[in-house]
Amino acid sequence: MRVKKRKGAAELIASRPDIVATERTGWARYFGNENPVHIEVGCGKGDFVVGMAAKHPEINYIGIDLQETVISFALDKVIESGLTNVKLIYGNGRDLNEYFDEHEIALIYLNFSDPWPKTRHEKRRLTYKDFLKSYEKTLVPNGEIHFKTDNRGLFEYSLASMSHYGMVFKQVWLDLHKDEEFAQQNVLTEYERKWSEKGYPIYRMEAQFDAQQ
Amino acid sequence: MRVKKRKGAAELIASRPDIVATERTGWARYFGNENPVHIEVGCGKGDFVVGMAAKHPEINYIGIDLQETVISFALDKVIESGLTNVKLIYGNGRDLNEYFDEHEIALIYLNFSDPWPKTRHEKRRLTYKDFLKSYEKTLVPNGEIHFKTDNRGLFEYSLASMSHYGMVFKQVWLDLHKDEEFAQQNVLTEYERKWSEKGYPIYRMEAQFDAQQ
Repeated sequence: MRVKKRKGAAELIASRPDIVATERTGWARYFGNENPVHIEVGCGKGDFVVGMAAKHPEINYIGIDLQETVISFALDKVIESGLTNVKLIYGNGRDLNEYFDEHEIALIYLNFSDPWPKTRHEKRRLTYKDFLKSYEKTLVPNGEIHFKTDNRGLFEYSLASMSHYGMVFKQVWLDLHKDEEFAQQNVLTEYERKWSEKGYPIYRMEAQFDAQQ
Repeated sequence: MRVKKRKGAAELIASRPDIVATERTGWARYFGNENPVHIEVGCGKGDFVVGMAAKHPEINYIGIDLQETVISFALDKVIESGLTNVKLIYGNGRDLNEYFDEHEIALIYLNFSDPWPKTRHEKRRLTYKDFLKSYEKTLVPNGEIHFKTDNRGLFEYSLASMSHYGMVFKQVWLDLHKDEEFAQQNVLTEYERKWSEKGYPIYRMEAQFDAQQ
């Protein structure tokens, strides 16, 4: 997500170290409990993590984004929500192992990640094999990635990339908003709502690492 | 594909044992050469196998279907084409091992298979695990299945089912006819053309068995 730089974003972030972390910390202490931690890599303005946190008080959520302005908007939403089970990391999701111990995370969400359509940018896609390796290390054994996107090319790429890596698809949706049952639990991002209203399909998958391999 | 019963279909089939087999035979002798054999399970009226045979004279094609009327129409097409590298099996694709030796087949095509949308009919879908097992046994090691369909539910199911079986997706298309490069090599079935013209996406995948497992 490309956004116009927000004035005062750095100060805002610095003023709330209880919500925005910029380096590795003891996450159980940070949240004040031992609940499972789910993270979103590339959380943008935070609609999804805040929405999920409101729905699932028994889970701790962390949204990670490398753009200062975007994290500052996510921070607004966390503050406004008053929720204590959602935090943010202002940092690069490229190396999750910088922020988390091995097998510390119960689930990873990727939502509407940058498609990087050019072949020469393949390595930047969040489902490129180097990222998958870092996710696998960070996740519990047989951990899962839940991924949704409106971008057909990125979804096609991700199915091949994750399957080559040895991941198994537990479930795949090729037009998510047609699934009335899933709609009950779906937390939409602002972007997802806009895109879907135009009639474009949203793709989603739940993919699992195979600890047997 | 449900079709009205054709009068004289049985006689037509019986009159051309050089093109329609009803039981296991020595396929190299049947074709008169040792070229690789590709099969289509559920070939319907034969557009695809005949089209592929015309395009690839170095490959032998066999279309299999269990409906007498449908096989008789495919036979018309084979005769009309004058091609000698395409044959038919009037029989059930459920147990390929009845017709082929282990690892005898180089590639399997599934095109627009019956979606069997009801959960209780899962076992009838051509990508159900029992079918995959039979395909694996029939295919060369690391053999491939090339599958296309317009049916979203069947494609979603197949991605999960094949991935659970340990297959790897070499490439996936979620709107095949948008891929201009692939269009050069794509052999359309009549059904595919009609469906695509209505603006519906055609899904396709190339999936490979993993001989390492």
